[in-house]
Amino acid sequence: MQYLAWLAPIAAIVGLVFAAYLAFWVLRQDPGNERMQHLSGLIQKGGQAFLIAEYKSLIVFVVIVAILLSVALPGGHGWQTALAFITGGVLSVLAGYIGMYVATRANTRTTQAATVSIAGALKVAYRSGLTMGLVVASLGLLGIALWAIFFLLSGHNPEPEVVDGFVMGASSIALFARVGGGIYTKAADVGADLVGKVEAGIPEDDPRNPGVIADNVGDNVGDVAGMGADLNESYAGALLAPMVLAVAMALAGTPFSGSVLGPFSVDGILAIVMPMLFAGGGIIACIIGLAAVNTNDSSKIHAALNRGTYVTSGITLALILVLCIVWNSLGSAEINTVWLFGCTAAGLAAGLAIGKLTEYYTSYHQKPVQKIADASESGSATNIIEGLATGMLSTVAPAIVLVAAVAVAYLCGMQVAGEQYAMQFGVYGIGLSALGMLSTTAVTVGVDAYGPVADNAGGIAEMAGLPPEIRERTDALDTVGNTTAAVAKGFAVSSAALTALALFVSFKTNLAAKAAESGEWSLNLSLDNPYVIVGVVIGAMMPFFFGAMTMGAVSRAANKMIIEIRRQFREIKGLLAGEEGVEPDTEACVTISTNAALREMLLPGILAVVIPVLLGVLDVNILAGFLVGVLAAGFLMSVYMANAGGAWDNAKKYIETGQHGGKGSDAHKAAVVGDTVGDPFKDTSGPSINILIKVVTVVSLVFVPLFYTLEGGILHGFLSF
Amino acid sequence: MQYLAWLAPIAAIVGLVFAAYLAFWVLRQDPGNERMQHLSGLIQKGGQAFLIAEYKSLIVFVVIVAILLSVALPGGHGWQTALAFITGGVLSVLAGYIGMYVATRANTRTTQAATVSIAGALKVAYRSGLTMGLVVASLGLLGIALWAIFFLLSGHNPEPEVVDGFVMGASSIALFARVGGGIYTKAADVGADLVGKVEAGIPEDDPRNPGVIADNVGDNVGDVAGMGADLNESYAGALLAPMVLAVAMALAGTPFSGSVLGPFSVDGILAIVMPMLFAGGGIIACIIGLAAVNTNDSSKIHAALNRGTYVTSGITLALILVLCIVWNSLGSAEINTVWLFGCTAAGLAAGLAIGKLTEYYTSYHQKPVQKIADASESGSATNIIEGLATGMLSTVAPAIVLVAAVAVAYLCGMQVAGEQYAMQFGVYGIGLSALGMLSTTAVTVGVDAYGPVADNAGGIAEMAGLPPEIRERTDALDTVGNTTAAVAKGFAVSSAALTALALFVSFKTNLAAKAAESGEWSLNLSLDNPYVIVGVVIGAMMPFFFGAMTMGAVSRAANKMIIEIRRQFREIKGLLAGEEGVEPDTEACVTISTNAALREMLLPGILAVVIPVLLGVLDVNILAGFLVGVLAAGFLMSVYMANAGGAWDNAKKYIETGQHGGKGSDAHKAAVVGDTVGDPFKDTSGPSINILIKVVTVVSLVFVPLFYTLEGGILHGFLSF
Repeated sequence: MQYLAWLAPIAAIVGLVFAAYLAFWVLRQDPGNERMQHLSGLIQKGGQAFLIAEYKSLIVFVVIVAILLSVALPGGHGWQTALAFITGGVLSVLAGYIGMYVATRANTRTTQAATVSIAGALKVAYRSGLTMGLVVASLGLLGIALWAIFFLLSGHNPEPEVVDGFVMGASSIALFARVGGGIYTKAADVGADLVGKVEAGIPEDDPRNPGVIADNVGDNVGDVAGMGADLNESYAGALLAPMVLAVAMALAGTPFSGSVLGPFSVDGILAIVMPMLFAGGGIIACIIGLAAVNTNDSSKIHAALNRGTYVTSGITLALILVLCIVWNSLGSAEINTVWLFGCTAAGLAAGLAIGKLTEYYTSYHQKPVQKIADASESGSATNIIEGLATGMLSTVAPAIVLVAAVAVAYLCGMQVAGEQYAMQFGVYGIGLSALGMLSTTAVTVGVDAYGPVADNAGGIAEMAGLPPEIRERTDALDTVGNTTAAVAKGFAVSSAALTALALFVSFKTNLAAKAAESGEWSLNLSLDNPYVIVGVVIGAMMPFFFGAMTMGAVSRAANKMIIEIRRQFREIKGLLAGEEGVEPDTEACVTISTNAALREMLLPGILAVVIPVLLGVLDVNILAGFLVGVLAAGFLMSVYMANAGGAWDNAKKYIETGQHGGKGSDAHKAAVVGDTVGDPFKDTSGPSINILIKVVTVVSLVFVPLFYTLEGGILHGFLSF
Repeated sequence: MQYLAWLAPIAAIVGLVFAAYLAFWVLRQDPGNERMQHLSGLIQKGGQAFLIAEYKSLIVFVVIVAILLSVALPGGHGWQTALAFITGGVLSVLAGYIGMYVATRANTRTTQAATVSIAGALKVAYRSGLTMGLVVASLGLLGIALWAIFFLLSGHNPEPEVVDGFVMGASSIALFARVGGGIYTKAADVGADLVGKVEAGIPEDDPRNPGVIADNVGDNVGDVAGMGADLNESYAGALLAPMVLAVAMALAGTPFSGSVLGPFSVDGILAIVMPMLFAGGGIIACIIGLAAVNTNDSSKIHAALNRGTYVTSGITLALILVLCIVWNSLGSAEINTVWLFGCTAAGLAAGLAIGKLTEYYTSYHQKPVQKIADASESGSATNIIEGLATGMLSTVAPAIVLVAAVAVAYLCGMQVAGEQYAMQFGVYGIGLSALGMLSTTAVTVGVDAYGPVADNAGGIAEMAGLPPEIRERTDALDTVGNTTAAVAKGFAVSSAALTALALFVSFKTNLAAKAAESGEWSLNLSLDNPYVIVGVVIGAMMPFFFGAMTMGAVSRAANKMIIEIRRQFREIKGLLAGEEGVEPDTEACVTISTNAALREMLLPGILAVVIPVLLGVLDVNILAGFLVGVLAAGFLMSVYMANAGGAWDNAKKYIETGQHGGKGSDAHKAAVVGDTVGDPFKDTSGPSINILIKVVTVVSLVFVPLFYTLEGGILHGFLSF
């Protein structure tokens, strides 16, 4: 039965082969004239330089953590966990690098295709995005599947801690990629805009502005590499969580227990195999769904992208339903695994619903954004107040959808076996709901990574001085890209929350099993343990702390950028006047963003890893409360920041369509302030908090064996009772 | 032994008598010339009109809730709880009314005193504030003490639910007073500033501005009546929580159990009596501490107010230590109640520390505010980014102080009796820490309510056209008032969190006792119950929802105010030109603020009461998670919003001292935007969230008997296991 698991790496390899096909197709397209290629080359160079510098600092971090893992984790699995950690990190790096490579070459090709038709441009941009999406999902599945086959399905005692290391590797890279990328992109964006648009009064993406290349690099670094690493981590985490739960259930004496293979019954084997096959089905569905994304009508681009998402979701659900039925017929008659379809469907539906809600709060066709535009009439203060209020309000419905999905998944899971195992299967169902939400990751990343490509294509059209109708076409693609980016952010945060929840229940299950095994100490995760409350409060504080650190980082870096751009405008003669042959020193700005990102990502990154370990060493009950606090407050802060930022951005765009006096009006000036505040909100702090939620949970999960040897923490028995 | 309890109402009456003395002293002062009296009269009229209108709508609410309580609560105590609820509400109303009455008469007397000396002006302003403070604390203690004497110490079975009703009454009034007052004051402030200062270019408090009277009324409505009701509620809640815990401990078979009186041992009786005596000691200490607030040096006003706080805190601690020693000598030798001094001291110290931290983040003598002022140089966007980052960062240290206080209180409490009762005494210690923090409430309210009096005094000096040196003196008082207001907000939110935590443990203890009594169902408050997590997420969402509703309310109301002020400037001939005898229609603006506040406070108010009851009816475990989620996220959101607002305000004031180009510079304009955004942040949403934290908890506590008859909620046994 366990040989079915090999279908998963096969699906992953199919995904990779198809991604290679797409990549070569994109690279075969016409890259445009020399000027365009030169501009694209600058972006490629900047992006590559950043990634390489980032990876260089990461190597140090990865090596230190790997050594710590080898040493700190007892039981002889330290070095294996460290190895898994390294592979998780390397595959995440690989996914980011490939995605960036294609995206930074697709930009000029999209511009060139736009000289012919919208359909062509959409095709280039979307295919480059989907390349990234497929690589992200396939490498995640490949890595997890291989480690799972060797360590969970080897026939010996299964060792989930080792596979946890893989997810921690992906997490660590994602953390730095997201935080660093977010700081990079917004330092460049805010700096370039404040000096260029506001002070010097030159248009966006004007070739005279020395910060424009850094801004365009930033789009790729943040929205392609950062978002890719973010979802790669969610994907790996969501995939692993139900498998870890299945192992714990097999060891605890449930219908998953048996002796067919190691401690597993047939159902136990399938409980580990099936999540991987669900994921594989999702990858295949994403490939099929590509055909649906096709239009030549600029007003239907959004509909085409949505069609792609819906078709893929439909096919994915159908494949998962088939797999559940297969499982039910292969497994024991005592349990009804068709109910598990309900769990995955609940997750997938919640992902789509939260996407739709995000769209409602951030699209300028809807009331919330229009109200922000209205408020801009009385100045920037009212614009900010309305934007902040919209962001806060926009958390209500997603929170309800999320808990509804959790509740439905739990309820469906409870129906699988009898009342005796209801709670355990309910929790397994929650694990599957996260996987359901993430099964269509390739398409989500694709739709999102398409945005920066279209944005860059517009920038290149502007800087290369192409005729305005080309810019109009790329703008049509870009406008849709802004909405899809917002939707992807909504998806990223809800998937982060659901994944973290799934990982949290794995953490708790593992820890409780260890505690029960030893008999020396026990968990008291009840809310009447003051240490749990202490943990919840500290945990809820973390997103505020992270938000402050990342906003402050952008503020500091943008200031440096502002000083440099002002210096160039002052010192480089003829630059502002636009004299022939006078070029700005774009590299200086790229260097500022790169250095700032590398320096500023360190502290948040290290704290996210160190704090959970420290708390767990003190008392595991504090740590458990902490994880729940981070999860709840982090989810809400992230949605609040992402949606407020998206809404401000589109309120400005709405006014630019001619509303409230259009471009240059007082309302527009007020809206620009909101947009600038929203930049670090939506692109730095919000996404960083996503990662925070997951990193603290997966680090806790990996360090369970350490907490175990400390008998629940050094305060245990001293302060806790 | 129970007769010792009578010392508490006696202390309360001493407090009231002294408050009456202070009030008559203030009213005896010279109210200034006719013009000043006329202006003060307008503010008095506006304030009174609002309070009466507010109380009228509240009567409907109070009657409905009282009827519901009588009907919904089983066991025959419904009508008694309803009666306690009404008395709690009436006493809170009375405190607010008396405080407003004195404050709106002290303003012109402070202005007049300032014509002679700063010392005189400080004396008038601070004594009026302390009147309010003493009334707030004394009425709270009086009400709780009388209900406790009759229902907890009556010798029959003690009935804590009935006394809970008193706190719920105070809570409900506080909710509406805070939310309504916050909307009132900021609608007027934002509206008057945006049209007056920004559009028409006339100074603050200019008599031509029709919104100025509403703005001055708002200061009293929000910062006097609103803050007073807020701390009245915290005070009553913090006082009640340890008493309810003591009853539960007496019923559960601990050293508090016995048969000396009802189910109590001597220690059990003292465990109910002593919290009231601690509170009474605090009131006496506040009266003594008044002597320390005295200076004639304008640079030492702040030091004088701080001296008052420290002297009072020192005396309070000394009295509590004596009471703990008395308790130890009266009670059983088996328990050492001197440890309880540590619990109260931890709470009091945390209150002072959080006050200092708030001062650090909001005072313009410190780096955070100066950095916001720096950032204003590159425009309003960077001012806002820096302010938001500062607000978020400012949550870190208070969160750590709060959990440290909880941990210390828990630890000290655990030492009182043997290991067998350690957890129960630890929890009782947490209850006492909240009381410790609130024992000096009279002084905190006094220092805070002094602010709006000084602010109003400056407004009257400006509008009455007094010589500029008078305004300078009142401004010196007012500047200090801004910092003390920020510190009071920090105190209000930390006391809210600690009170809510104390009430939460009472809620949980009561519920668990009921569940154990029935044997039919049980609580599962562990974090591995998905319904607890569901509750935490919904709870954490509530502060965002509340923030959005209250920010939106201010935005809507300010818009109406803007339209009205613009209309008057346009239609009333000679108004803007300042022609002799032309007066603005200030009443129209007062009416707008009043109506907006009354209308907009309803939905948030009703939701805060209804949602916890609904969740509890569904499943008490969801409700418990919800309360913890509201507590953690609400504490942080409230600190974030209050500190960001205070920091923006003082960054503007810092620039007005001549930094970064001073008044009228671009940096100043940017800082005005931050200040305007900060207005609803710090004076409407932040404080409303404070109340939310407490209201949901006390409502849950009151409805425990209902949840009990539903056997833990209608989902119980269906979805939860």
